[in-house]
Amino acid sequence: MTVHTAGPAMPQIGTPLPDDDPEPALVGLAEIEAAAERIRPHAVRTQLLRSPWPDLWLNPGSLQRIGAFTTRGAAYAVAHLSPEVRARGILAHSSGNHAQAVAYAARAFGVTAHIVIPDNAPRRKIDATLALGATVELVPLEQRFSRPDELQAQTGKPMVPPFDHRDVIAGQGTIGLEIAEDATDVAVVLVPVSGGGLISGIAAAVAALLPNAQVIGVEPELAGDAAESFRSGRRLGWEPTLTARTIADGLRTFSVGRLPWAHIRRQVADVITVSEDEILAATAALALQARLVAEPSGAVATAAHLFHSDQLPAGRRVAIISGGNIDPAVLRAVIADA
Amino acid sequence: MTVHTAGPAMPQIGTPLPDDDPEPALVGLAEIEAAAERIRPHAVRTQLLRSPWPDLWLNPGSLQRIGAFTTRGAAYAVAHLSPEVRARGILAHSSGNHAQAVAYAARAFGVTAHIVIPDNAPRRKIDATLALGATVELVPLEQRFSRPDELQAQTGKPMVPPFDHRDVIAGQGTIGLEIAEDATDVAVVLVPVSGGGLISGIAAAVAALLPNAQVIGVEPELAGDAAESFRSGRRLGWEPTLTARTIADGLRTFSVGRLPWAHIRRQVADVITVSEDEILAATAALALQARLVAEPSGAVATAAHLFHSDQLPAGRRVAIISGGNIDPAVLRAVIADA
Repeated sequence: MTVHTAGPAMPQIGTPLPDDDPEPALVGLAEIEAAAERIRPHAVRTQLLRSPWPDLWLNPGSLQRIGAFTTRGAAYAVAHLSPEVRARGILAHSSGNHAQAVAYAARAFGVTAHIVIPDNAPRRKIDATLALGATVELVPLEQRFSRPDELQAQTGKPMVPPFDHRDVIAGQGTIGLEIAEDATDVAVVLVPVSGGGLISGIAAAVAALLPNAQVIGVEPELAGDAAESFRSGRRLGWEPTLTARTIADGLRTFSVGRLPWAHIRRQVADVITVSEDEILAATAALALQARLVAEPSGAVATAAHLFHSDQLPAGRRVAIISGGNIDPAVLRAVIADA
Repeated sequence: MTVHTAGPAMPQIGTPLPDDDPEPALVGLAEIEAAAERIRPHAVRTQLLRSPWPDLWLNPGSLQRIGAFTTRGAAYAVAHLSPEVRARGILAHSSGNHAQAVAYAARAFGVTAHIVIPDNAPRRKIDATLALGATVELVPLEQRFSRPDELQAQTGKPMVPPFDHRDVIAGQGTIGLEIAEDATDVAVVLVPVSGGGLISGIAAAVAALLPNAQVIGVEPELAGDAAESFRSGRRLGWEPTLTARTIADGLRTFSVGRLPWAHIRRQVADVITVSEDEILAATAALALQARLVAEPSGAVATAAHLFHSDQLPAGRRVAIISGGNIDPAVLRAVIADA
């Protein structure tokens, strides 16, 4: 592995966030195995695919129901509610793929879903959520968290948050179980990071099942709050106007969650960033060379392999493709540039 | 199933072709199982995927090595040669995906490949074949079969033809084994038809393992020689200038082969056709809704489900996606129209 000397110190962008419980219990293998059992009727077991690039395997979350990994965590969180609580209907907030996943899971369990989505989310993801039968409430970005809290207080409905929740993390962790079943000689698992639920679940599973593998998070430079947090050792939040700049609309969350941060600090080896050009080039390469339609957020881990290989351990690498719900105009544009 | 009354009689387009051995022995399950064993190191075991459309499952040959199912037949045919014969190097002819598959298989066995490709084949497929280390000879369409014969006579190299060969058919048949492993309640398997090797192998496996399932071929209307042959009960050839009209560049073969025809007559329930618009719409739907990049040839079976459901048996349907090697400009265009 190449040793990097540090460049000139960058000014810190993020604002430290409170950690009221700095040492929460991490999600364990037993919870993830329980999640795998519960979500079996609702989620696809994804097959690890060999990529066209040496040393890289792909976990195609784009081929999951609703086209994103979020199906796993939402299905487990909804399944794990008591029937009486679940019958009240589910509340959620999301920038897109979690919305569809909660709508899908609620429908599978025959209950309603009310989902708060920031009004800068892609139209396609909003329409897909409506098509799954959910009620969608669009709010200005700054009400993304306050409005769901308000609704919960008013209605008493259970909330299934997108990442800061044990059951959601355990559900996403089932990806780690499947990777460990398909390959035992994994050197590194590359995982897109937004709120951190996905990487937390995978890191928890990998720590238990593939102790020689490193889990490395990948973020857009333009929404690099987790990378900055990782370097500074503190959970930092970025301004929404900053994270909103990236084309990777699923990775615009302003900070990782509290429970995810506990996993990232203890079970993740590094968090690196990729540029917008690298994200778009990886999206094109996945479509044209791996024949997989990934959304830009879903392509960041592949971008890390293609463009930042020197920052990564050698050996068999697995890149998580988190989702495939791309705006057709964006897909067209990246193919044109390829 | 809807009953269709025949429309006005259409004039016959094709010319009857000779059948010197009208009752050849069909490929059997044991050969297909032997092929599965032999190709395991060289071909991906594809997972049956649930599609976004009710009742339709997808077999993603686009996720196979070199992006097409042809890897299977070529790998088995090359593997099955004696080491001394194989060492002379492999000869092949192909409109595209078989060329890449033979190049890939030859490289895997450390021997050379000399591949004759008609000069109307897509540039991308030619480049991919060269990139795999093969020698490529571009010939006018009318020399597609004569030039390889000439080369074989001159060099004594073994020929791995694209479809009219037992081992190639047995290799393609491994798809049928995998479908039968993943699902037992299949009503119909929809298979793109060009030279007929793919559908023959699948039909042979399905006849043995899923006796209640029908295998139905799908062709572009503009290259509908197999459909016309099926209706007339005789193997017919179309003019290359006719079959060349379809956007589905992998399905422009002028007729099915002799051994494939024996399978189609006896083990295939129907061969239906789809229009160019339906092919393009299915290509777009696969990319945007199923998140799979299929080439137009690979999308015809899905087009049959989406647009000709009333011609098909009800129940669980499996559409074979034969390949994903699409011209980026075509992919861009179909997404723009979607």
